Amino acid sequence: MRRIDVGCDLSYQVRQTTVFLFQISAAQTPHQRLICGQFSVNPVVYIEICPIGMEGNQLQRIVVEPCELQIAYRATVELTPEVEAPTTVGESDASQMPAEVLTYLNPSRYCESDLLSKFAFEEFGMIPRGFLRVKAICEWVNAHLDYSSGSTNSTTTAADVLLQRTGVCRDYAHLAITLCRGVGIPARYVAGYAVDLQPPDFHGFFEAYLDGQWYLFDPTKLAPVGGLVRIGVGRDAADVSFATLIGVALMTSQSVLATESAISDHTVSTDNSQSAVSTA
Amino acid sequence: MRRIDVGCDLSYQVRQTTVFLFQISAAQTPHQRLICGQFSVNPVVYIEICPIGMEGNQLQRIVVEPCELQIAYRATVELTPEVEAPTTVGESDASQMPAEVLTYLNPSRYCESDLLSKFAFEEFGMIPRGFLRVKAICEWVNAHLDYSSGSTNSTTTAADVLLQRTGVCRDYAHLAITLCRGVGIPARYVAGYAVDLQPPDFHGFFEAYLDGQWYLFDPTKLAPVGGLVRIGVGRDAADVSFATLIGVALMTSQSVLATESAISDHTVSTDNSQSAVSTA
Amino acid sequence: MRRIDVGCDLSYQVRQTTVFLFQISAAQTPHQRLICGQFSVNPVVYIEICPIGMEGNQLQRIVVEPCELQIAYRATVELTPEVEAPTTVGESDASQMPAEVLTYLNPSRYCESDLLSKFAFEEFGMIPRGFLRVKAICEWVNAHLDYSSGSTNSTTTAADVLLQRTGVCRDYAHLAITLCRGVGIPARYVAGYAVDLQPPDFHGFFEAYLDGQWYLFDPTKLAPVGGLVRIGVGRDAADVSFATLIGVALMTSQSVLATESAISDHTVSTDNSQSAVSTA
Amino acid sequence: MRRIDVGCDLSYQVRQTTVFLFQISAAQTPHQRLICGQFSVNPVVYIEICPIGMEGNQLQRIVVEPCELQIAYRATVELTPEVEAPTTVGESDASQMPAEVLTYLNPSRYCESDLLSKFAFEEFGMIPRGFLRVKAICEWVNAHLDYSSGSTNSTTTAADVLLQRTGVCRDYAHLAITLCRGVGIPARYVAGYAVDLQPPDFHGFFEAYLDGQWYLFDPTKLAPVGGLVRIGVGRDAADVSFATLIGVALMTSQSVLATESAISDHTVSTDNSQSAVSTA
Repeated sequence: MRRIDVGCDLSYQVRQTTVFLFQISAAQTPHQRLICGQFSVNPVVYIEICPIGMEGNQLQRIVVEPCELQIAYRATVELTPEVEAPTTVGESDASQMPAEVLTYLNPSRYCESDLLSKFAFEEFGMIPRGFLRVKAICEWVNAHLDYSSGSTNSTTTAADVLLQRTGVCRDYAHLAITLCRGVGIPARYVAGYAVDLQPPDFHGFFEAYLDGQWYLFDPTKLAPVGGLVRIGVGRDAADVSFATLIGVALMTSQSVLATESAISDHTVSTDNSQSAVSTA
Repeated sequence: MRRIDVGCDLSYQVRQTTVFLFQISAAQTPHQRLICGQFSVNPVVYIEICPIGMEGNQLQRIVVEPCELQIAYRATVELTPEVEAPTTVGESDASQMPAEVLTYLNPSRYCESDLLSKFAFEEFGMIPRGFLRVKAICEWVNAHLDYSSGSTNSTTTAADVLLQRTGVCRDYAHLAITLCRGVGIPARYVAGYAVDLQPPDFHGFFEAYLDGQWYLFDPTKLAPVGGLVRIGVGRDAADVSFATLIGVALMTSQSVLATESAISDHTVSTDNSQSAVSTA
Repeated sequence: MRRIDVGCDLSYQVRQTTVFLFQISAAQTPHQRLICGQFSVNPVVYIEICPIGMEGNQLQRIVVEPCELQIAYRATVELTPEVEAPTTVGESDASQMPAEVLTYLNPSRYCESDLLSKFAFEEFGMIPRGFLRVKAICEWVNAHLDYSSGSTNSTTTAADVLLQRTGVCRDYAHLAITLCRGVGIPARYVAGYAVDLQPPDFHGFFEAYLDGQWYLFDPTKLAPVGGLVRIGVGRDAADVSFATLIGVALMTSQSVLATESAISDHTVSTDNSQSAVSTA
Repeated sequence: MRRIDVGCDLSYQVRQTTVFLFQISAAQTPHQRLICGQFSVNPVVYIEICPIGMEGNQLQRIVVEPCELQIAYRATVELTPEVEAPTTVGESDASQMPAEVLTYLNPSRYCESDLLSKFAFEEFGMIPRGFLRVKAICEWVNAHLDYSSGSTNSTTTAADVLLQRTGVCRDYAHLAITLCRGVGIPARYVAGYAVDLQPPDFHGFFEAYLDGQWYLFDPTKLAPVGGLVRIGVGRDAADVSFATLIGVALMTSQSVLATESAISDHTVSTDNSQSAVSTA
């Protein structure tokens, strides 16, 4: 069991009335217990907590008038050490998958599995079905892409990345997801925090559905899988953007933190700004 | 109130064990009452009915050994005449939309609203917000696209269509959805049947979220909106493919029907094959 | 030395005054001697022969009023058996290539070598420079693509093909050209005829520049390289379309022939329509 | 008649033996007389001047060992004031265009006129043929794109720009070229210098072929057409990249100048590095 502190500070110059949708708070899951969490906004505004979809995602919605806006999020989670899947874990058959999992076989905005399925079958169709096949996909992605900040942008898709062979964490995850779906393995994007990521930033990884449950993978190898903290899941990054703005505002600073908790008795300092404790 | 008979017959040559996921049965909604429905498979196999997601979609899953497979679906629905929205219907504000609606602002596989939002704002940003703006988008799509069977394929996206200016019903819907999302109006794809469509085929149209509810639009103008029968909704056509195959099978024939019900007392003939009455 | 008969018959329904640009006549090159050639048009119109560019391409331009148009082309060429390059042939260095060859390193409409160069280097960067590297590229293309008529269209590019893994001769050539350019080998598209191609059709292949001269390759392996007859060369298929129309006309039939000449004394039958003997 | 001083300074950190192909020297044309020009390289290497193609392009090729490389180019040209075309100038007919012009109707890497011709015809097909139609295309491009440094990269095409509605000079030119070709007007890219461009940089504009000659257009309106100095022409930017590197080198600085010549008696200072006076 690991205890992890995560959080972020975001500043915006809001120029017109703007609606913000934030997806930055740690999720509550069977493997991730939220010990405490605090979402603070300065100046004080009403914070609406919106659960989204059926996978436990939630977002914070605020409406802000022109101002200098500061968002601070802090939380501590306890991760139940996820035992690495035995290499004998197989794949679920399409005839047995729960209906809600079937959706994760569909192509999505950044994961055009319809375009890449022939490629996926050619490269990974001969590998025995199961955990080791997803592992092979991750190894392939890691070996064939160069990690390079700024090499891609918010419109870059898995097909683009497969050609360019360059990207960031989100692109690594998108390509691996697409190749999994391409060979018939449901896969979904996970947005989150990663312990000791260098440089500190939000992180993107993915889950594949094998033998009746979801398993976590990070093809970037930038952080140990055991130190990944979930914010939310979706078909791809389009569903779990950490901030969506409707209005006119300029981000002026961003910092992210995720570290092993030094002490087991964790207390969150409170400040005067309004806050919502999102213990889900 | 209109009573409509819909249905389809599909034949496949199944060459290896194949999992079929069908989305061809009429949905049950407040505006669409399912009077009776019958999904028949020959040869007889177990038919699993899988509800998918939160919008009432469902699919039929069957596993079939090599054979000549025949699927027949027949249903009768009663449509509550949807009163055309008054032209004064406005748009919902992002600060007020229910959380589950926000998802339909995200870009998706065939609706790259992130790519086209600048275009959308330029063309439709000045039009007063509301029903008339969506109407204007539909008129623009109808005026700028040529309807041409076979001009596009299953990988064609809204951005492709905007450039090519040619497509089929699915492409019309994708482009209109994308332009709606581009200016901040949630929009989703609807797969269904259309009364008296020529030539008869499955149809694709869309819904936009305005003033707290979903309104139906068909930018092809090929069928009256009052004669559209819903199968399911999704972000785009990727979510509501009428048949998804995992295995090896060849479609050998397809026919679709949708006509005004001649008599109000409708009886469905039964045959010897196994059937599931999907009255949801 | 081989003697080959080539030709084609094309019919069009011309609906408005239309300018046709044909590139169907066999080229005259050091390795390909044009014994005789006849380009016939019915009804009779003035045929303008236009040399294009610096590589010996030429096209026939005609202006046609509404009519049923028939084009017939017949030619006999003598191919100097191109001795297979010794496997020791190396690559030219960019510091030594003639200036007119450098152009064939640039990306072009259907050969986005800028997009694929990372992929090309990764796959083929380690192979010793020279003839065997181009051979390896051809083998890779042949092994990874499925030949399938109708799988692609006139807008399909090398990047599309690399993802889809399916195409026709033109796509095979485009992908091989793109991979060659990607690793720094100038490459160009060749449109032509191929002896005994099944089914008979125009053919597309390519040339790579090695050790100071151009070598011919056909990654489809559908016809022996020694039986390939050149019409013209270009950066890609955009430059050597067999027919370009400006106006309104519908192609109603097309047949192509290319066979080993049975007799060495070849005579071309003449007919009453106007004809241009294009012996270059 | 205007006298213009142009030039640039480029620095590279060369890490392995690298072949450089530069296209930075002013062209000699009927409308642009090269008074004097000097291409200097430090350290001294052999400079090969390579004429490319049939339009008077030339490039400087050098081979450089690891070093700190400095390139300096200075030239003075005299522009014969190009009288604005009378608005009555019409278009050449495809039946009359010289053969070498026909090539500029073909789609190219960054100008997919095949993809956009339907769009082009729809927007500009009704406008009377001629100079005013190209002017209308330029106005449309200028009105619908936002000029934004860094918004696009070296792989961005006209189709991308048409969707994104954002770009730099090269993108403006690519889109205008593509729309011209789309309606049947030959168009080609021109790389060059522009007097008093802010901030100073290389510039990209284009020429359209009308009534038997090429006319210059700059859809960015960032510089007067009368102050544009040509380096070279091509199908698009792929043909006239100012620097192409084969090897490993890092650009460390770049500055560009283009100003009205203060004095009519122009002298170029010489330095100790080897130089080639490229008076063509």
